Amino acid sequence: MIKELLESDHTNNISTRLLQQIEFIAEIDNLKQILRRTFLLDKSRNENSAEHSWHLAIMAMVLVEYAGSDVDINRVLRMLLIHDLVEIDAGDTFLFDESVSADLKAEREQMAAERIFNLLPSDLAIELRALWEEFEARQTADAIFAASMDRLQPLLQNYFTKGGAWQQHGITVDKVLAKKYVLDAGSPELAKFADALIADAVDRGFLKA
Amino acid sequence: MIKELLESDHTNNISTRLLQQIEFIAEIDNLKQILRRTFLLDKSRNENSAEHSWHLAIMAMVLVEYAGSDVDINRVLRMLLIHDLVEIDAGDTFLFDESVSADLKAEREQMAAERIFNLLPSDLAIELRALWEEFEARQTADAIFAASMDRLQPLLQNYFTKGGAWQQHGITVDKVLAKKYVLDAGSPELAKFADALIADAVDRGFLKA
Repeated sequence: MIKELLESDHTNNISTRLLQQIEFIAEIDNLKQILRRTFLLDKSRNENSAEHSWHLAIMAMVLVEYAGSDVDINRVLRMLLIHDLVEIDAGDTFLFDESVSADLKAEREQMAAERIFNLLPSDLAIELRALWEEFEARQTADAIFAASMDRLQPLLQNYFTKGGAWQQHGITVDKVLAKKYVLDAGSPELAKFADALIADAVDRGFLKA
Repeated sequence: MIKELLESDHTNNISTRLLQQIEFIAEIDNLKQILRRTFLLDKSRNENSAEHSWHLAIMAMVLVEYAGSDVDINRVLRMLLIHDLVEIDAGDTFLFDESVSADLKAEREQMAAERIFNLLPSDLAIELRALWEEFEARQTADAIFAASMDRLQPLLQNYFTKGGAWQQHGITVDKVLAKKYVLDAGSPELAKFADALIADAVDRGFLKA
């Protein structure tokens, strides 16, 4: 459909730049089709990566007071909005999936980033890809806080669905705790909350000891 | 589930403030269940308001150059992320639905705002509600640009699904053009693009003349 639009006489007076931006906007609609292992809170269906990204961005808005003072919430919001776009080509990888090597995942995601961000005019492609690379590298305060939102949200989805994806995939508490270091780095208060949530989940039988 | 968490011994050492924030975060999961009239671009299903909000926020990031210089993109992003939260209680109202009076819609949405934002600690409740009121009033440059994203995105969804919700609900071009004033106010360049899109949609039979 984007080709038909580009070739239409009606868009003769529209800049190539704007049409590239529109093509990118149409492409990212596909993220709404990428399903995660986590469920919606009523367990009616799996969550998709677009609505998940939205959820993380609002979480960051509401929880930023627990981040370090060096965190720039405006950069965190942008990072969270685009952090899963590569899944359009590479798919979602379950946090606890050990069958996929980190190298292979990284390679697939780099190829996806190359294609998807480059639909944009080059200045925007460079800007958004750099944000994504920063998120992935998890070396800056902004990226660490963004990643801690991405770690906290599935804990909530799994707790509030009485075990959700943990139950479905036989995940044990040691595996959940082994992934919590991201939260420890991003926010000690949110990590303390995560500890309480995980302990309560074990007590209630949502998560196997 | 949030009650069980609040009453658990494990959360004794977690502040009421943080638990209120978590309750809000759990509540807004419900926006993922609110369906809009628009379809995903492959027409496999209707779009929901959470993934729609995410789409608008990325659109604003990518299209902000077409906004006036007085637009603060950071405020626009926040506004777009929360602009549909009231639909959790009030439901989505189709842009072309004339059976719902504007007064009734406003009243339902005010009641929804009262309940949903007030799950948060009061400082955050006031901040987010003010942002939503600003979006609704459409008087500031930020709100007008945010609203223009909300007007442009369904045009794209409908065009790229060869008529989508326009076809399903028998919407004619005069009705679509009558709603375009928001885009004219938000960005002359994007309004010019919308004109081209609408004209092409009519030519191709996606939208009735």
